[in-house]
Order: sequence, then C-alpha cells, then structure tokens
Amino acid sequence: MEIEVLRIGQRLVRDDRVTTHVALVARAFGASKIYMNEINPEITKTIKKVNYTWGGRFQLHLIDDWKKLIKMKQSKGYKIIHLTMYGLDIGTMPNILSNEEMILVVVGAEKVPRLAYTLADYNVSIGSQPHSEISALAVFLDRIQNGVQFEKKFGNGKRRIIPTNEGKRVVITQKRD
Amino acid sequence: MEIEVLRIGQRLVRDDRVTTHVALVARAFGASKIYMNEINPEITKTIKKVNYTWGGRFQLHLIDDWKKLIKMKQSKGYKIIHLTMYGLDIGTMPNILSNEEMILVVVGAEKVPRLAYTLADYNVSIGSQPHSEISALAVFLDRIQNGVQFEKKFGNGKRRIIPTNEGKRVVITQKRD
Repeated sequence: MEIEVLRIGQRLVRDDRVTTHVALVARAFGASKIYMNEINPEITKTIKKVNYTWGGRFQLHLIDDWKKLIKMKQSKGYKIIHLTMYGLDIGTMPNILSNEEMILVVVGAEKVPRLAYTLADYNVSIGSQPHSEISALAVFLDRIQNGVQFEKKFGNGKRRIIPTNEGKRVVITQKRD
Repeated sequence: MEIEVLRIGQRLVRDDRVTTHVALVARAFGASKIYMNEINPEITKTIKKVNYTWGGRFQLHLIDDWKKLIKMKQSKGYKIIHLTMYGLDIGTMPNILSNEEMILVVVGAEKVPRLAYTLADYNVSIGSQPHSEISALAVFLDRIQNGVQFEKKFGNGKRRIIPTNEGKRVVITQKRD
C-alpha cells in the first residue's frame, strides 16, 4: 500500500512541534511522504537528521494549494481519507481501506475548512473524543496496516535498535555516504 | 483494566502542547488519570474544558517525585510499563498485558533518566523508529485494549458526536451542573 500524508492548517508554525511529530509518525508508520503548505526550517532539519540516523527515504514536500493536491491524487486513483473526530468510526473502516493500493491521509490542525470534509472520500474518526492529530494518524495507520508497518526496513541508516527490556541496545552501522 | 499514565520529563513547560496532547490521548483512550511533576495552567484549563464539554471524569494530578509514585503503585499491584523506542516490541506484548488489572504507563519527554528503565516492569516500544510519545501512548492503549476503549461512555458531557461521512453531527445534551 502506498501511503502519503497531507497536513493542512493555518497555524503550522505555531504548531511547530506538533507538526514535527505528525511528520515523524507518518515516517515511522510507513508513509513515504508528507505534504504541507508551510514548512518550518526546524521540521526540515529534524526529518533530514532522522533519515540520516535511522534510515529510509521519507520526504517532505512543500505545496501551494492542498485542494489541488487532493484533486490531482484523486485523479491518479488515490483514496482520500480525512481524519476527524466527527467521521465514521475507524472500527468499521479497516476492511474497506486495507484493500486500497494508494491512499492520501489528510490531517488537519485546528479549524479545518469544510472543503476538506467534502473533498475526502472518507471522513474517519479514531474514537469520538478529542485527542490529537498525532495519535489519530498513528492509530489509523496501525489499524489499516495491521501492525506490519513496523516490520518495514529503513535502509541505509546509521543506527538500528535491538529491542530489549533493559536499557538501550543499538547497532551502529557504517554509513555509505 | 484500570489504566493510569505518568508523564515524566524536565521540560514539560517547553513541551506544552505536546504534554496537553499526551493528556488528551490518555483521557480519550481510557485512562482514568495522568500524573505529572509540572502542570501548566494551560493544560489544566484544556482538560477541564474537555471534561465539561465531552464528559467523563479524567483527572490531572501533580506529583513531587515520580520514582515514589512508581514504587507506591508497584506496591499496590500495578504493572509499570515504560514506553520507549528501545523497548520490547509491542507485537510481542498485548497478550501478556491484556490480562493485567492495573497498569501505570510511563511516558517520557526527551532525555528520560535511566532509572525509568530499571524501575519499569516492562520497557515497550511502538516500532523501533523515532516518532512521538503521543502516538506511542495511543497505539499502546489501542493495542492492549483491542479498540474497546472507544466504546466507553463519557458520562455527563454536553456534546456527543454521531459518526458520519459528511461534515459534523453533534448531539447537544442538557448539562446537569
């Protein structure tokens, strides 16, 4: 499944750390890229550093117009899923969505324009209580992939973790620059 | 299952919005309370407002010493689970943890003291790539409860969402003050 994420919102710079966490979740949970209409230098730096250290080719893309991006992706066969606490319950969705080949997951900051709801193929909620776009994205990607995203290899990283119940075990590999 | 969350870290005030999101995830994913050693007025206000509007009795507690709290909870039979990207893979844990009656989930900000690793009964990772304490907590609570946390009723709220694929449907109920 090809997964891409679109972060929309007016105040991404104020929401700096939250937006960085959204991007990191997209990367760690198997998306190949994230699109945003504002990119703070801090986020670019963090993602670059994380890719360098932990591997993979996750990409950040700056866009002018998120509506255009949605329409362009739809024309290529992507299903658009907008995550919102007002949407259809995730418990009813995984079977439908697990069969899709290409999805674009739309994650809003506060005050999402109504158009995001109408352009989306699905408006999906992760519970009907307020929490966070970071947790919503993570649980959504975990559910639709049945956890297999964590088996994905991130190639050419500098460090790799060996899971342990005691402290930290990290393998440091030679980096090919 | 009785679930409580402990947020530790030195720079919670800088991590203001992230800490607020951690608290909102704890609430929305079925925990009864969150403990912190610093509580910003902003977080208190947000949680109070969310409880008022969306119901339930989720609590914030200020503590002096997180090590003491962990030991006290352990003595009462709680299992302590520290979420860390260096821990045991979550894929191997749910069966063990789903049988616990009381758990305290420890979520660190950056630079978690080594003692958190050693005091915990389990150090658990949500994937071995860096993402966010917000997403780690959410996926962990979703996995160990098999999604049933979203069926929980939040009593005495002012608003309740009717899931829909089109826009927003909210039932506004009379509040008993």
